[in-house]
Amino acid sequence: MDRVDEFQSRREEGNRAVLDLDHLGIKRFYNLDTNTYRDGALPAKVKELLGLVASLVLRCNDCVDYHLIQCAKAGWRKEELVDAMNVALVVGGSIVIPHLRHAALTLKTLEERGELAS
Amino acid sequence: MDRVDEFQSRREEGNRAVLDLDHLGIKRFYNLDTNTYRDGALPAKVKELLGLVASLVLRCNDCVDYHLIQCAKAGWRKEELVDAMNVALVVGGSIVIPHLRHAALTLKTLEERGELAS
Amino acid sequence: MDRVDEFQSRREEGNRAVLDLDHLGIKRFYNLDTNTYRDGALPAKVKELLGLVASLVLRCNDCVDYHLIQCAKAGWRKEELVDAMNVALVVGGSIVIPHLRHAALTLKTLEERGELAS
Amino acid sequence: MDRVDEFQSRREEGNRAVLDLDHLGIKRFYNLDTNTYRDGALPAKVKELLGLVASLVLRCNDCVDYHLIQCAKAGWRKEELVDAMNVALVVGGSIVIPHLRHAALTLKTLEERGELAS
Amino acid sequence: MDRVDEFQSRREEGNRAVLDLDHLGIKRFYNLDTNTYRDGALPAKVKELLGLVASLVLRCNDCVDYHLIQCAKAGWRKEELVDAMNVALVVGGSIVIPHLRHAALTLKTLEERGELAS
Amino acid sequence: MDRVDEFQSRREEGNRAVLDLDHLGIKRFYNLDTNTYRDGALPAKVKELLGLVASLVLRCNDCVDYHLIQCAKAGWRKEELVDAMNVALVVGGSIVIPHLRHAALTLKTLEERGELAS
Repeated sequence: MDRVDEFQSRREEGNRAVLDLDHLGIKRFYNLDTNTYRDGALPAKVKELLGLVASLVLRCNDCVDYHLIQCAKAGWRKEELVDAMNVALVVGGSIVIPHLRHAALTLKTLEERGELAS
Repeated sequence: MDRVDEFQSRREEGNRAVLDLDHLGIKRFYNLDTNTYRDGALPAKVKELLGLVASLVLRCNDCVDYHLIQCAKAGWRKEELVDAMNVALVVGGSIVIPHLRHAALTLKTLEERGELAS
Repeated sequence: MDRVDEFQSRREEGNRAVLDLDHLGIKRFYNLDTNTYRDGALPAKVKELLGLVASLVLRCNDCVDYHLIQCAKAGWRKEELVDAMNVALVVGGSIVIPHLRHAALTLKTLEERGELAS
Repeated sequence: MDRVDEFQSRREEGNRAVLDLDHLGIKRFYNLDTNTYRDGALPAKVKELLGLVASLVLRCNDCVDYHLIQCAKAGWRKEELVDAMNVALVVGGSIVIPHLRHAALTLKTLEERGELAS
Repeated sequence: MDRVDEFQSRREEGNRAVLDLDHLGIKRFYNLDTNTYRDGALPAKVKELLGLVASLVLRCNDCVDYHLIQCAKAGWRKEELVDAMNVALVVGGSIVIPHLRHAALTLKTLEERGELAS
Repeated sequence: MDRVDEFQSRREEGNRAVLDLDHLGIKRFYNLDTNTYRDGALPAKVKELLGLVASLVLRCNDCVDYHLIQCAKAGWRKEELVDAMNVALVVGGSIVIPHLRHAALTLKTLEERGELAS
């Protein structure tokens, strides 16, 4: 298992535990969250990139991994993702660097898996 | 060792290292912190729930685990804890979700240990 | 106009501008947010107190004012609100103090308006 | 003076005071910051939108106003900006709402000034 | 009244309201906070500078003003304060810039009042 | 491998991945970051201490480890580092405690390695 598989398996286990809590408000939030990244006035592809930058400046590694995977599926190329990561670095400062390191390693794994558009 | 035991053992090792630093200000802060959750105008039980929600919106897994354990001891039932976790999710947004997953898994462990009021 | 009237008038003007944006996702979020503080496994009264503490540790004065007003309506007494504010101070540290000052002045205004339970 | 003029005048006065500090590191940071939003692997237009969402989730009104003005200049339409603001709301939660209100009022002003693409 | 007078008067009014709440925990926190910046293993002068940088990266203008005033009293020169502000800018990123503008204007006022060491 | 070796090895692997991204803006940020902690109006030694406190209040364990190592190299004694950590605790509140535990364990390791000035 590489870091992408490991993340996805851990994420699924956690989401199952959350949904087992069986709280209507939490389920509605999950639903709202999913709909947020569907095509709207902005295409889904652009909104995934917004999610990536928001995750980096808020310094959440799991959210970074999730949005990197989604961005790769949406067709963003490596150079474009890195340019977005640079915006997050400048907005968020050097405190973002450990999360940039995390993102760079996940990006490398996605590339090795052949899941990044070229 | 389940995740609750693991957390408590790691927390104790860390707190010992902090107290070994032997700094008067730090010791006073620890003391103040302990007193904060004693019965006052609000009962201790309510203040543990406040601590849980504050920990979730500030996105600190160790603090979440600590307050979940304290909330279970104070007699909060699972459904009530989940309703508080939902408040934290809505206030803090989807960036809280990885910590909600963490909390759901800890809650499940507390339930399996028979430490949650029913 | 006292600080409570001023806040409410500014909040209403802003919320009108938000709803005029006419975005389905935003409207659903507003709806979800309102439902969060309705009676559930926890009574509405307790959830308003959770909202107050979350607002203080996240350092949002407008959110603090909103939840103080809601907490007063829900029947929390001054001493209880102050005890919750102390939890937020200890969790969030001295960086919370300017927001504690803000909350103390709003609380004083609510008291002068006769809107705090005694 | 409307809120956009007021913001720009206050921002310019502040930036003059910062540059008068005459610190090489600060000047280099300002330079780096400006270059970040130039065309690169991503077009400048997309990067301004990333800046807007980062500003909203980090809850900085001045940064929100700055990036809204830049996004309008870059040619984003109102509906697209609102869709980006919705991503920020869902990622950042209800604590973002006061900043969403702020953004909605600035957007309204930009529209009245005829500075939003349609 | 310049911005320093205005801040101090507003701060005093707020602190009076906080102390009027008459909560033992809050009073103890205020006391602990005051003691933190007394001479210890580190001189008070260094600790005020730490307080300034912490306030900037946590983006709290009132805290920035307070620590700038304290740093000026402690004998830090303008160039030194600016060098500390640069550390905060790089750690915290461009989202700190509005607070850097605020700090630069307060520094200018302190200089005009003759309260900065030269 | 102790926790300091483990951190440094993980940090180097991550930084290699970041530099392999080959983005000019990111490289310039890294360069700016390095220069920030060089002797200026303030000596490098003081600026490393500022970096440590900023890292603690922003709650970033990797940044804390990095600056503790740098502070040890710069000649700060254990008692002085602990006094700075106390400032961070009081500013940032009990939510900082898990990071204080982390810092205390790293400090202990640095001491055992004989890398702390006495």
